Amino acid sequence: MAHPLFDKHQTLLAGALEAIRGRGYWNPYSENPASYGDDAIEEGRKAFSAYFDAQFYLDQPGVMGRVIAGHSPFGLALDISFPQCSPDALIAAARGAMPAWIRAGAEVRAGVCAEILARLNERSMEIAHAVMHTTGQSLMMAFQSGGPQAQARGLEAVAQAWGEMKHVPESVLWERPQGKNPPLVIEKRFTVVPRGVSLVMACATAPTLAAYPALFASLATGNPVIVKPHPAAILPLAITVALARQTLKEAGFDASLVSLLVDDSGTPVAKDVAVKGDIRLIDCAGRTEYGEWFEENARQAHVFAQKSGVNCVVVESTGDYKGMLRNLAVTLSLHSGQTALTPRTILVSSEGIKTPDGTYAPEQFGRDLSLAISALLEDNARAVEVLGAIQSPDTVTRIDALRELGAESGQVLRDSSPLPHPQWPQARVHTPLLLRIEVSDRQIYEEERLGPISCVVETATASESFAIAERIMREKGAATFSVHSVNPVMQQLAEDVAIRAGVALYFNLTGGLYVTQSAPFSDFNGTGANPASSASVVDVAFVASRFHVVQSSRHAG
Amino acid sequence: MAHPLFDKHQTLLAGALEAIRGRGYWNPYSENPASYGDDAIEEGRKAFSAYFDAQFYLDQPGVMGRVIAGHSPFGLALDISFPQCSPDALIAAARGAMPAWIRAGAEVRAGVCAEILARLNERSMEIAHAVMHTTGQSLMMAFQSGGPQAQARGLEAVAQAWGEMKHVPESVLWERPQGKNPPLVIEKRFTVVPRGVSLVMACATAPTLAAYPALFASLATGNPVIVKPHPAAILPLAITVALARQTLKEAGFDASLVSLLVDDSGTPVAKDVAVKGDIRLIDCAGRTEYGEWFEENARQAHVFAQKSGVNCVVVESTGDYKGMLRNLAVTLSLHSGQTALTPRTILVSSEGIKTPDGTYAPEQFGRDLSLAISALLEDNARAVEVLGAIQSPDTVTRIDALRELGAESGQVLRDSSPLPHPQWPQARVHTPLLLRIEVSDRQIYEEERLGPISCVVETATASESFAIAERIMREKGAATFSVHSVNPVMQQLAEDVAIRAGVALYFNLTGGLYVTQSAPFSDFNGTGANPASSASVVDVAFVASRFHVVQSSRHAG
Repeated sequence: MAHPLFDKHQTLLAGALEAIRGRGYWNPYSENPASYGDDAIEEGRKAFSAYFDAQFYLDQPGVMGRVIAGHSPFGLALDISFPQCSPDALIAAARGAMPAWIRAGAEVRAGVCAEILARLNERSMEIAHAVMHTTGQSLMMAFQSGGPQAQARGLEAVAQAWGEMKHVPESVLWERPQGKNPPLVIEKRFTVVPRGVSLVMACATAPTLAAYPALFASLATGNPVIVKPHPAAILPLAITVALARQTLKEAGFDASLVSLLVDDSGTPVAKDVAVKGDIRLIDCAGRTEYGEWFEENARQAHVFAQKSGVNCVVVESTGDYKGMLRNLAVTLSLHSGQTALTPRTILVSSEGIKTPDGTYAPEQFGRDLSLAISALLEDNARAVEVLGAIQSPDTVTRIDALRELGAESGQVLRDSSPLPHPQWPQARVHTPLLLRIEVSDRQIYEEERLGPISCVVETATASESFAIAERIMREKGAATFSVHSVNPVMQQLAEDVAIRAGVALYFNLTGGLYVTQSAPFSDFNGTGANPASSASVVDVAFVASRFHVVQSSRHAG
Repeated sequence: MAHPLFDKHQTLLAGALEAIRGRGYWNPYSENPASYGDDAIEEGRKAFSAYFDAQFYLDQPGVMGRVIAGHSPFGLALDISFPQCSPDALIAAARGAMPAWIRAGAEVRAGVCAEILARLNERSMEIAHAVMHTTGQSLMMAFQSGGPQAQARGLEAVAQAWGEMKHVPESVLWERPQGKNPPLVIEKRFTVVPRGVSLVMACATAPTLAAYPALFASLATGNPVIVKPHPAAILPLAITVALARQTLKEAGFDASLVSLLVDDSGTPVAKDVAVKGDIRLIDCAGRTEYGEWFEENARQAHVFAQKSGVNCVVVESTGDYKGMLRNLAVTLSLHSGQTALTPRTILVSSEGIKTPDGTYAPEQFGRDLSLAISALLEDNARAVEVLGAIQSPDTVTRIDALRELGAESGQVLRDSSPLPHPQWPQARVHTPLLLRIEVSDRQIYEEERLGPISCVVETATASESFAIAERIMREKGAATFSVHSVNPVMQQLAEDVAIRAGVALYFNLTGGLYVTQSAPFSDFNGTGANPASSASVVDVAFVASRFHVVQSSRHAG
């Protein structure tokens, strides 16, 4: 079934599928701002500013009122009002839009999805400003991770979905031999049928990056999608939804295939909507208790939950002590540790860290890591680029609570302090807190705590470090496991732990790669194999569980 | 990673994958008994008879006692005793066997699975006798569906799993350009990691056909499998497990990757085992309440449930009234309606059935269908071949209860009666019961009732027939939907209903295809899209949800 949008994007889709199957570096959407034009940043800022003090236009049914987005983590007043629609009206409209979208078939859906992504890409800088002023990410991170990387994850989902759907033929003549009689010939037709209405809940710290894979996996497989952003990060997804609706409409489909459901933190709607019978797919990202609530209560739906965990680091030996410290310092500081991939607990044995220059004791390592963080953040302009702002005031409260706990039960290796932002005087910027915690104080270092907070824990032996890391990651979940060791026996031990705990393993990162960076088309973000996630972005199960195949059979001829 | 068993079966696996993607007729294991040798049936009988009055040998850990299999539905005394092992011992052994099986990789696992299937195929006739004398299927049906067709479904699962796993490369060099600096080069390795121990529960009416897809999907993706047969149908799976263990051992793996867990109907163990933390995959087939229990209680596991439903038939018009009646008569009689695909409720409107010879009133249709069934079963020897025996005495009780209900609320169109079996005087054979039920008596025709029981329901219009069928299939579930109509508008309506209800649709079957026959490599058995099943055999989700990918990354060189 030829369609201009499939023709337009077929090469891109084929390239994406090839990249997924090879898992080498591939980058369909440039991460270099210069590629978007000389004035791209400024034009993006203008487009973003046009939303201030205004009503965001979205032609959706069942408007009941409006929700106002308030202040940015950088202190900027947004005052954007979004239409709040009745969930039942959105669901009814979504259901009505399904039949034509099913009939369109896999190729057309993939083509339309790729077109939405192409248009999102053109507006990357506008979205970057929107992501920055909702998540607290610095502009460059908001651009790269909230723009082209999020789009790439969306394309990855579309390509995975298309790759699986195109294995289902539209029709076939099935001919069974019948001995001397002529064969029995049956004409069979196969239709990819979506599960139903898909509810995608986006988190506040990475709204587009977390939502796009689910949005596009569901849409490409035929499911209409209702996007429910975190009340603190509506704008980037409002822009996304408006653009998706416009593209669908222009392609001849019902805009109701994608809609925006907003709420405010005082009257949350997600849990009420999630248990409605028509909601058949749920994607959520956020705290573990949040994800688990949907897994336990929304029994009529298939739930894909990106929850949180306690990512661990085991430091045993290194060939490059300074490189290791620098890499860890950047990793712990990037977006103030507000990512699901940031390490939380660093395990070092009292035997010390073996290096070519001798062995460093755990106390020395704690001091050195603290100094490396301070060196990284010495220059204020650079510091705020790395740290960004703290998305939620709760995170600041958490820093304060941990600082007290640390002072009681261990030692504050590096204190957190507010940092003035040269451009945004009201910005909520705080430097990382690094604690030394006793191995007996499990309740401190075994708890997930989003934000710029990490613990160094001294163990008796490297083996104990691995044992503790394994226990934490299996019980609490983890998305990344970093190991510094040049010892092949320890590396094998680490591999075994990673496979048992179902966690992505990183060895001896001392250069320009950080565990907080997950590369589209190459890295699986989350594994689904431990409590930190029940989905892996973007593996085959992530798309295959969103559709069924319905067949019809009849005698041929 | 070359391995003799992968080399041996690579062509077969590639053929299977090609067949899955084309969905034409393909048959790797012959369904013609003659292909198995001149004396195959008799040799199979001898091998089967050797188990009588004996202890079935199975070298498994944790033996606590023995369970005795009693009588066949044909009245044959089996008196085979199976070792009853501690579930915890089987789970511990299974877990211990995992690491080497993971390391073996996708190709080796696929090769070993194909080898197990090849050996099962050689013993098809022995298994046929075992299936016959546990399920009540006639020998020919037990051979075809319990032998080569079950093996084909197993191979289909292995090929689907292999097809997805081979898309995950073992390793890659990921090279990110860094402007003028040399690229950042990361070596990434990917490992397919199973979810954990897989519990496969097999039903009493189709033990091998229902269990093989799950057994082989789990095993091929790296999960050790504990097979828990229905207490009435242990032998076919005991033979299967023993042979799988022998093959695994000879291939250099731990036999504990496949084990048999037995119980008797007085002290069932499935529910206790299913909620153990180490059980991460559950496959079950059987009654809806049974499947739902696991879905609701075994929250630590991914549950694939083949439940039951109320398969509907809408008869509106036909080009071949007699052919239609003949096809329906066979469909309702095959294995005495003891399959999940058998129609239960036949909807005919009072407007009658339009045919080239005129319109037949519903009453006439009821009489004609009743006569067609009787004509099919007129010859006793042929009748028992079609009907087989009734697997469970409960089904006989159900026939009696329905006969009374039918007499009260409707009309008995064709009464069920015991039928003497020429070869097995003690065989439990009963002819089909056909009732006419009022459209208001929903509680009768909207309930799943396994066995040779079907209802003709008269509606006001064909549209009402479709509306009732849709409601039943969406609420109660269905695996097949048969429609007789030569009217294009009605056919379109039927297609829409099938897509909304997520059910496989069959139009105007009047020849040698019956809806109870689901062809491996071509038909999806169940869709997962309505309450009759949460899995589709064998779609991509059926295999993809059984594994994760764990990666490790390090600087290259």
